[in-house]
Amino acid sequence: MTIEEKATQLMQGDISNWLNVTSGAFNRTGLETSFDQKTGSYYVGYPISWDWLAENIQRGQDYAVNETRLGIPPLVQTEGIHGFLIGNATIFNSPIAHACSFNRTLIERMAEQIAVEAKTLGVNQLFAPVADLARELRFGRVEETYGEDPYLAGELSLHYVLGLQSLNVSAMIKHLAASSMPEQGLNTGPVHAGERELRTTWLPPFKPAITKGGAWSIMSAYTSYDGVPQVADAHVVTDILRDEWGYEFYVMSDAGATDRLASPFRICPSPLNKYGQAVNEGNECVTLNALPAGTDVEMGGGSFNYRSIPELVEAGRLDISVVDRAVTRLLRVKFTMGLFENPYIAAPKSEWNNLINTPEAKELAREMDRESIVLLKNDQEILPIKKDAKVAVIGPMADGFMNYGDYVVYRSQYRGVTPLDGIQNAIGNGSVTYAQGCERWSSDQSGFPEAIEAAEAADVAVVVVGTWSRDQQELWQGFNATTGEHIDVSDLSLVGAMGPLVRAIVNTTTPTVVVFSSGKPITEDWISNTTASLVQQFYPGEEGGNALADVLFGDYNPSGKLSVSFPHDVGTLPIYYDYPNSGRTTNPGMILPGGEIVFGSNYVTNTPQPWFPFGFGLSYTTFQYSNVSLSAQNASATDHITATVSVTNNGTRDGAEVVQLYVKDMLASVDIPNIRLHGFEKVHIPAGETVEVEFPLDVSELGVWNSQMKYVVEPGDFTIYAGASSLDLRGNATLTVA
Amino acid sequence: MTIEEKATQLMQGDISNWLNVTSGAFNRTGLETSFDQKTGSYYVGYPISWDWLAENIQRGQDYAVNETRLGIPPLVQTEGIHGFLIGNATIFNSPIAHACSFNRTLIERMAEQIAVEAKTLGVNQLFAPVADLARELRFGRVEETYGEDPYLAGELSLHYVLGLQSLNVSAMIKHLAASSMPEQGLNTGPVHAGERELRTTWLPPFKPAITKGGAWSIMSAYTSYDGVPQVADAHVVTDILRDEWGYEFYVMSDAGATDRLASPFRICPSPLNKYGQAVNEGNECVTLNALPAGTDVEMGGGSFNYRSIPELVEAGRLDISVVDRAVTRLLRVKFTMGLFENPYIAAPKSEWNNLINTPEAKELAREMDRESIVLLKNDQEILPIKKDAKVAVIGPMADGFMNYGDYVVYRSQYRGVTPLDGIQNAIGNGSVTYAQGCERWSSDQSGFPEAIEAAEAADVAVVVVGTWSRDQQELWQGFNATTGEHIDVSDLSLVGAMGPLVRAIVNTTTPTVVVFSSGKPITEDWISNTTASLVQQFYPGEEGGNALADVLFGDYNPSGKLSVSFPHDVGTLPIYYDYPNSGRTTNPGMILPGGEIVFGSNYVTNTPQPWFPFGFGLSYTTFQYSNVSLSAQNASATDHITATVSVTNNGTRDGAEVVQLYVKDMLASVDIPNIRLHGFEKVHIPAGETVEVEFPLDVSELGVWNSQMKYVVEPGDFTIYAGASSLDLRGNATLTVA
Repeated sequence: MTIEEKATQLMQGDISNWLNVTSGAFNRTGLETSFDQKTGSYYVGYPISWDWLAENIQRGQDYAVNETRLGIPPLVQTEGIHGFLIGNATIFNSPIAHACSFNRTLIERMAEQIAVEAKTLGVNQLFAPVADLARELRFGRVEETYGEDPYLAGELSLHYVLGLQSLNVSAMIKHLAASSMPEQGLNTGPVHAGERELRTTWLPPFKPAITKGGAWSIMSAYTSYDGVPQVADAHVVTDILRDEWGYEFYVMSDAGATDRLASPFRICPSPLNKYGQAVNEGNECVTLNALPAGTDVEMGGGSFNYRSIPELVEAGRLDISVVDRAVTRLLRVKFTMGLFENPYIAAPKSEWNNLINTPEAKELAREMDRESIVLLKNDQEILPIKKDAKVAVIGPMADGFMNYGDYVVYRSQYRGVTPLDGIQNAIGNGSVTYAQGCERWSSDQSGFPEAIEAAEAADVAVVVVGTWSRDQQELWQGFNATTGEHIDVSDLSLVGAMGPLVRAIVNTTTPTVVVFSSGKPITEDWISNTTASLVQQFYPGEEGGNALADVLFGDYNPSGKLSVSFPHDVGTLPIYYDYPNSGRTTNPGMILPGGEIVFGSNYVTNTPQPWFPFGFGLSYTTFQYSNVSLSAQNASATDHITATVSVTNNGTRDGAEVVQLYVKDMLASVDIPNIRLHGFEKVHIPAGETVEVEFPLDVSELGVWNSQMKYVVEPGDFTIYAGASSLDLRGNATLTVA
Repeated sequence: MTIEEKATQLMQGDISNWLNVTSGAFNRTGLETSFDQKTGSYYVGYPISWDWLAENIQRGQDYAVNETRLGIPPLVQTEGIHGFLIGNATIFNSPIAHACSFNRTLIERMAEQIAVEAKTLGVNQLFAPVADLARELRFGRVEETYGEDPYLAGELSLHYVLGLQSLNVSAMIKHLAASSMPEQGLNTGPVHAGERELRTTWLPPFKPAITKGGAWSIMSAYTSYDGVPQVADAHVVTDILRDEWGYEFYVMSDAGATDRLASPFRICPSPLNKYGQAVNEGNECVTLNALPAGTDVEMGGGSFNYRSIPELVEAGRLDISVVDRAVTRLLRVKFTMGLFENPYIAAPKSEWNNLINTPEAKELAREMDRESIVLLKNDQEILPIKKDAKVAVIGPMADGFMNYGDYVVYRSQYRGVTPLDGIQNAIGNGSVTYAQGCERWSSDQSGFPEAIEAAEAADVAVVVVGTWSRDQQELWQGFNATTGEHIDVSDLSLVGAMGPLVRAIVNTTTPTVVVFSSGKPITEDWISNTTASLVQQFYPGEEGGNALADVLFGDYNPSGKLSVSFPHDVGTLPIYYDYPNSGRTTNPGMILPGGEIVFGSNYVTNTPQPWFPFGFGLSYTTFQYSNVSLSAQNASATDHITATVSVTNNGTRDGAEVVQLYVKDMLASVDIPNIRLHGFEKVHIPAGETVEVEFPLDVSELGVWNSQMKYVVEPGDFTIYAGASSLDLRGNATLTVA
């Protein structure tokens, strides 16, 4: 390979170079120019027809294979964190939602379906899964994560990768590392944390998918970590990833991320053109900071700084071995996934409808969604609703558009089953009325009387309110939204009239079910002091309304558990359950509904404890835990043991329980998380029956990063808890490690 | 010295062992027992009479010198961050307040006065200054800091130490390091940050007082930093402090801080007594973690783990050199400060009233206070108030008690000049009425009509509201408070009826001056949309009311500048001005007064920018900046240059301006603070005159901690700004470093 050929492998092309994504026109010159400069991969994430997509991927692959000197097939890339990003492909619920299913198998099946759909049109690489953590709830991208916990996110990322890559579609796990806790909660803001936290909290969710799952590529983060931009962080992307973890595939920058070394990071100068505008194209400083550090491939979405590679090599400023290393890593992926044998993997057009968004795929979406719904409160057993009831459905998130999270294709919101649809589909001899009550984006309460009237005329009211996001196009066009990429909040309560609407309906005499349809926790904690039931449905998939109805009417007994803790207020963040041992001093105060102030000190008028903790979720039945035992009470650091707990469904309704295994290291040489999830199993238990649940536990995973920053399993006692949530530990046993 | 004699030097005694602090009774046995175990130092911070204190310090010193084998005089210790902690000593305003004076000389004079008062009764060491930073505004101890900026806090800590130690009273600078940004803002909570931030932000405020000021002792922090408790952090307390900075004096733990290694840190086991209670006394693990790491002396307030020293040395588990090192460091202080020559330094009783809380000391307190008051808003020029005006004074912080910050002695609040007192003292032919309006601790609005009536009958209304703290005794007894040690908030707006009271008065037709009397920023940003004037008086000293009146009536032209940025809401924290280059993306939204929502994305309904920025403060005159110049445009890393700016008072009233020097490193190898304060001078400028202000600038101070964690002054351009605040940069010049 010439140095130019190598360099072109390391920059991302774009299908829009040869496809006019508005008119569908093909541009042969664009195709040639694109492959002249960027042959390694290209992006195809546009809202276009299946035909346009498949046809122009074929053109790209054919050109690369047949008309370039080396004939190396490109990777064909788009988004896919909760569905293949093309119109009318199956939309699953958002990651923050499906993480609440705690169901590895379902996530793996979802990834398989996404792979099938992607392959059907010729896409062979997806920018997923997200192994970031929801630990800064103001951040707009909370919904894209598998929640706050490193172990849960690590397991689910692993199973996403296993599912996707089982069909030879490459995963690209993102965003290495730690980008989801930016300063002030602001998108792409700097992350303030240290080396021990990096290793204890931020890297573990990535590791299983990378070391066990063999993810074929990794996307690095936009952010800096303790001052070092991840796109130039040799410590993370080379020392740890390569030298410690032995990773052999490639790392790609995020869209426009390399340009950030010039602005905002101010690490590289921005050459100016004759108009005084910054021009990074071919910026040598950017290339010299990013490529040797381990950012093998440069994504588009900004300048192509990597165009400077040939010149830098020729000038002796960049070692050819660095370029070869990057190209090798990229080609290794292509060989491993069989791309040379099958550069064009699309199915015949006649098969498309049998592969994309099939009834089975929709059913899977519904299954995932209902397993993800979390019942937070049901003191008065308003749920499940009888099918002969008169149901008033209220609220701006109940109908009119699908409340999808970000990373769906343009105008997706107009397709799918809304809560109102789902309730209407499920109702038996009862009846359904609907009143919107208010707009999501307004403080106007003029619709309240109609909504109150509807509620009062019904047996039960279902109020659906929450946050909202947008498809990737509208999101960046600046339409209103309250979550999603680059949409950050300083307040976690309901916007505008929605909070007052909930109050108005709860204040009627009609039993009320409040449904939060949202991409992150909402902090209307006053609902706890009412008789209302409360259901959390994080951003749904296309069958979301049916899934919600399954739960509301009891066709499905809710089994979801929170993937993220709910704070009482934005002022109490961060709220993750695995705070260090020295954290969360609690002497709460409160303001009573009448205004009386009960003074506390931590905090003066609130509590640092969660409103609802990580792992929490109710069922229509109840589960009793007993007999926590270990296969061995004493172990060495290399042992594998098994923890067992008996769980009895002691109610009258069949149900599923997410049994959680937490470990507390009773003594450690540093200030470690007070408790950590180290296992979970979701088990279906018929009413009245008992199931023994087993958890494999590698003692080697119980180590700490000690004061010398060495990973050590320290001898001593570990308390192993079986829990129904992170704050509801039902039994324990002691493991002594010698 | 025997090993036992050495060990006893390393534990802190307590005057209450021989003085019954309630009855005044002397306990000879207690004295003997105390000095049998702890001879290095003792604490005397009790609310007792001057006589009791002086007499029992004399007993302590006499016993140590004359009746112990070695006759080593002890250090005699109490608190003193804004005044010597004894009844009727001079109370200065809180550090967060006097930092707003930006006046090194005043802080040095204050420290001298504190030293005089402490020495007068025999105290020779004070737990001050505080070099922590106000970067987590929920934290209760914000008021104890010199604000958010490392340079400002470093300069003021230095000058406190210079003042105090000029009279041979030892400073104990605290709390090393970084304890003021705990997780969730909770007292003693874990600090999440990295090595680069430690060196860039958290250590710089300590360094001048330690390396230039020669502070004779250091107190370490309660907290962990990236998992390592500071009381056992060899990296900070030995590698950096000793090996890099060359520090030769001693480090002491905070009260009970060593016990924290057992609980909450869970690094050491807690031995249990026969009742199952934890007993750390003599805890070997604690000693072995703390002493070798560099915690030379153990404070009381918890167990005396260091009792295990002799046994550990005898058992060969602790090297005697570690003990000797600690003892040497302590004795070096005693020799250096002349304690062997003058173990008992108290003045004759006949002199006490000529030394403590003299008219000159009160005048100094008033001077500091008025220089610390910050005028935030005066659009309608309601201020200054004419002395023949009818003034309605309103609000619970206006009278009834002094609104001191924490670290004052029991029942101090009943002594001092309140805002009402001060206004009454200053009024000329006008008149003053007072209506409390509401209680600080209640939502009850029944006092509003009287307050509104008072406002309406007046020419101008002055509403004084804010936060409140307590003396050290009440604070820990659990009386209500909203700031101070261990009193943390999740909300920065006014508590209870105070916010509505301000609205009610502002809504009258009477011109209104709102005065925030507080220990931290308050977030009632709606005041910006009113015609009210706004004055910030951080917790005052005993002459606070007079100082406030000086400013309100224009006897003193306000010159204070904010030592800390004000956020719009707790949900926008952290708000410090020196965020990294990649921080603070801003596309604000807002909720209009009528409820209409203007959607933004960062944030959806707010802004991440400050309400008022660091360094901001108005005057009754205006200042024009011009001619920023440098003594050299090109420099090397070892050069000292001078920056000069001309400042003209272009108003009609004499005034003082805090001219600030900010530096922006135009390119750096890591993501550094976007801008940093590197100089300030407070200059008095008569109306119509121009002053040239010079700033010395060592180029060596413009370095960064690069990706290899080396401190390097990187070649390139630095923009040197003269500013009236961190967001009001008035002119600049470029320095090129080769």
